[in-house]
Amino acid sequence: MNFLVIGGDAAGMSAASKLKRMNKNATVTVLEMTEDVSYSACGMPYNIADPDRDMDVLVVRTAEVFRQKNQINLLTGHRAEKISPEEKKVFGTTISGHAFEFAYDKLLIATGAQPVMPEIAGIDLDCVLPLKNLAHGRRIKSIISERKVKKAVIIGMGYIALEMCEAFEKRGVSVSMVKPGRIFLPWMQADLSRMVQDEIEQKKVALYAGKSVERIEPVETGAKVVLNDLTLDADMVIVAAGVVPCSELAKDAGLELGVGGAIAVDRRLKTSDPDIYAAGDCADAYHVVTGEKCWIPLALRANRAGWAVADNICGVDTELKGVAGTSVFKVFDLQVARTGLTAREANAAGFYPVENMIKARSRAHGHPGSTPILVNMVGDKTSSRLLGVQMTGTEGVAHRINAAAVALQTSMTVAEFFQTDLAYAPPFGPVWDPLLTAAGQLLKKM
Amino acid sequence: MNFLVIGGDAAGMSAASKLKRMNKNATVTVLEMTEDVSYSACGMPYNIADPDRDMDVLVVRTAEVFRQKNQINLLTGHRAEKISPEEKKVFGTTISGHAFEFAYDKLLIATGAQPVMPEIAGIDLDCVLPLKNLAHGRRIKSIISERKVKKAVIIGMGYIALEMCEAFEKRGVSVSMVKPGRIFLPWMQADLSRMVQDEIEQKKVALYAGKSVERIEPVETGAKVVLNDLTLDADMVIVAAGVVPCSELAKDAGLELGVGGAIAVDRRLKTSDPDIYAAGDCADAYHVVTGEKCWIPLALRANRAGWAVADNICGVDTELKGVAGTSVFKVFDLQVARTGLTAREANAAGFYPVENMIKARSRAHGHPGSTPILVNMVGDKTSSRLLGVQMTGTEGVAHRINAAAVALQTSMTVAEFFQTDLAYAPPFGPVWDPLLTAAGQLLKKM
Repeated sequence: MNFLVIGGDAAGMSAASKLKRMNKNATVTVLEMTEDVSYSACGMPYNIADPDRDMDVLVVRTAEVFRQKNQINLLTGHRAEKISPEEKKVFGTTISGHAFEFAYDKLLIATGAQPVMPEIAGIDLDCVLPLKNLAHGRRIKSIISERKVKKAVIIGMGYIALEMCEAFEKRGVSVSMVKPGRIFLPWMQADLSRMVQDEIEQKKVALYAGKSVERIEPVETGAKVVLNDLTLDADMVIVAAGVVPCSELAKDAGLELGVGGAIAVDRRLKTSDPDIYAAGDCADAYHVVTGEKCWIPLALRANRAGWAVADNICGVDTELKGVAGTSVFKVFDLQVARTGLTAREANAAGFYPVENMIKARSRAHGHPGSTPILVNMVGDKTSSRLLGVQMTGTEGVAHRINAAAVALQTSMTVAEFFQTDLAYAPPFGPVWDPLLTAAGQLLKKM
Repeated sequence: MNFLVIGGDAAGMSAASKLKRMNKNATVTVLEMTEDVSYSACGMPYNIADPDRDMDVLVVRTAEVFRQKNQINLLTGHRAEKISPEEKKVFGTTISGHAFEFAYDKLLIATGAQPVMPEIAGIDLDCVLPLKNLAHGRRIKSIISERKVKKAVIIGMGYIALEMCEAFEKRGVSVSMVKPGRIFLPWMQADLSRMVQDEIEQKKVALYAGKSVERIEPVETGAKVVLNDLTLDADMVIVAAGVVPCSELAKDAGLELGVGGAIAVDRRLKTSDPDIYAAGDCADAYHVVTGEKCWIPLALRANRAGWAVADNICGVDTELKGVAGTSVFKVFDLQVARTGLTAREANAAGFYPVENMIKARSRAHGHPGSTPILVNMVGDKTSSRLLGVQMTGTEGVAHRINAAAVALQTSMTVAEFFQTDLAYAPPFGPVWDPLLTAAGQLLKKM
């Protein structure tokens, strides 16, 4: 069996390693266009924050280990450029300019996502960078040190942008964030979004929501970021304005695309070609709340999809139930988490959403050190189902969201969720967990 | 409507307050034998740890507020001594020696639990105390300060005993713990129990498992605790050897008792008498995993049961699905949590348990400050269901357990749980949450 993988990150390497474990006789080849495989991409902002910490600590397994210990034919510097489903071959060019071709019995496309780079003058300046792969991370880190960066502009206000605020602050760099939309975190209930904004502004980050970048002009020490009505000086610029799935190869090969231009796959990760799978950020997925297709690029589902591809190719039938869009990030001292649908998303998906925001505490009554936790919960008036939860707070948010994520997985009603037996001890929360209080209050509105 | 409640703690006051909110015309009377109502009993060890923090901060709502704001006829210092279901009356004596009687239309017994006091000489010495109510807490705290306690013996090694170790350590008191059983935490998988024991022993707590206390002898400065083969000096002794339900009143009134001598109630909290309810630590409950009755005295289920009693009396049909026995406690820097059944309990309940222990990390690969998290997971080979989880670690345990608790509530299989979409960010855990890794490994054994 000849298993070929395009892309050596989370989904690709998970599939390659698991398939080789399951079938020692298989030939497993991975084509990776960069020089890095299997690293914790999400760890880069935290690593950039610490000048004394080598970025290579983020590498989970090196290419050498994959080659020698896992017996995977891992080819870095190999850019796939064309898939021919008829010939069952992949064609491409190495970093040194040599053409290559590989035949496959089963192919996995795990090409990931790529940062959206606004089409403006100056986007190609050498002090303007996205943060997608380890090469970007290394480059950003070396620029901060070597050019003694003092001022940075971040284009975008998503997870990576917010995490980079903290990294820059730790490096003594002042930050301005810019995006065209007027609302800071549009997917978040207003009080919760305000809590995040307060945290950012307390750390002296300047927010420019509702401003579009017209161009970036080079100056001797870095750049001038020109907005419609204002110019910001920057020693460096981070572009974190979202990502799009890398699905060009699949599209050109005639494979069906799905939500957001991602490669359409079924619950077994199969594309419209029976011998081609797709997994990770380049592919779509089912949403456990709506039952519909969605495109939510996150690390866990990429790893899980990689494993499922290996299972299915090796004859272990594995269907993925889907994603809930559960995510968490840290913004300075604040934890911000969500799972499922916002009220707006629920409305768009045809539900009859009712939402409620509560303010709870992170520790029991009378216990020292308690801080506020905000919970916004969304339910469906028609079916009584729990549809989604968002939370913010300085402690007890990151893992607490998982209780709601499990509830979404089994289509629990808000009333059923309100009956769950959650843990209580004074240092960790009130007797009625904030999630239960939120459910109880939401029930009254439903 | 004349609603009478015996016991003014979690279940009793929850029921009284909610019923009065739902039915303004009802006469609500609560008979409480102590002087304190509605306080965070679980907060006492943490309060004792801090000499400068008044114990009254643990009071959530005072008797005066209940009387004036909530319009509840709250009678402290009133000990109920007899229930007559035929006359629908309760008889008793006040703390000042006056007999009283109250008629009811509906009665709630919420008498709680009481500490087990070993029948040994010296158990009634004034330096020997359990920690059950606020009076105990105040007394322990004043003894520590006034007698300048330096050495304490704790009889028992349950949650309260472990929490008191930390309180004593913070007060500069050295602690010895004693219990007859040889195994430190018999309900916990051996590696996890070892992790807790290491934490305790690092803090210089001396453990004497497998030793029974024969008597306590008074000496000028406190007591000598005489074990079968050893004598321990103590300025004070805490008795934390478990609790039993206060069900004598119910038993004498001819009500049916259930598991562990607790008052038997149905899912609507009704006893064998149609006009008498029972809720909180004095009553039994259904277990969501076994579907059978159990007696697990914990704060959340007491509050919830109180609410459900008010609902049912007021005509809002509320059935409680049951408890999972989810709990968490803090032992110095360690968080210890569990939900559902241990392998031994599962075996006794007629399941075919398979268990597996994994060692995970609290943060992502390459993220600084990561510490070990141990997860023991139990599944049923016959039905493939998830049966229980235990966890220990210095961070990310207390709230993480709730994801498993929700899974138990809906009888998820281990394979279904393995598919849940849990949150990931490097400061909060690995891409594969420790619970997912545990589920994946357990699946291989099942």
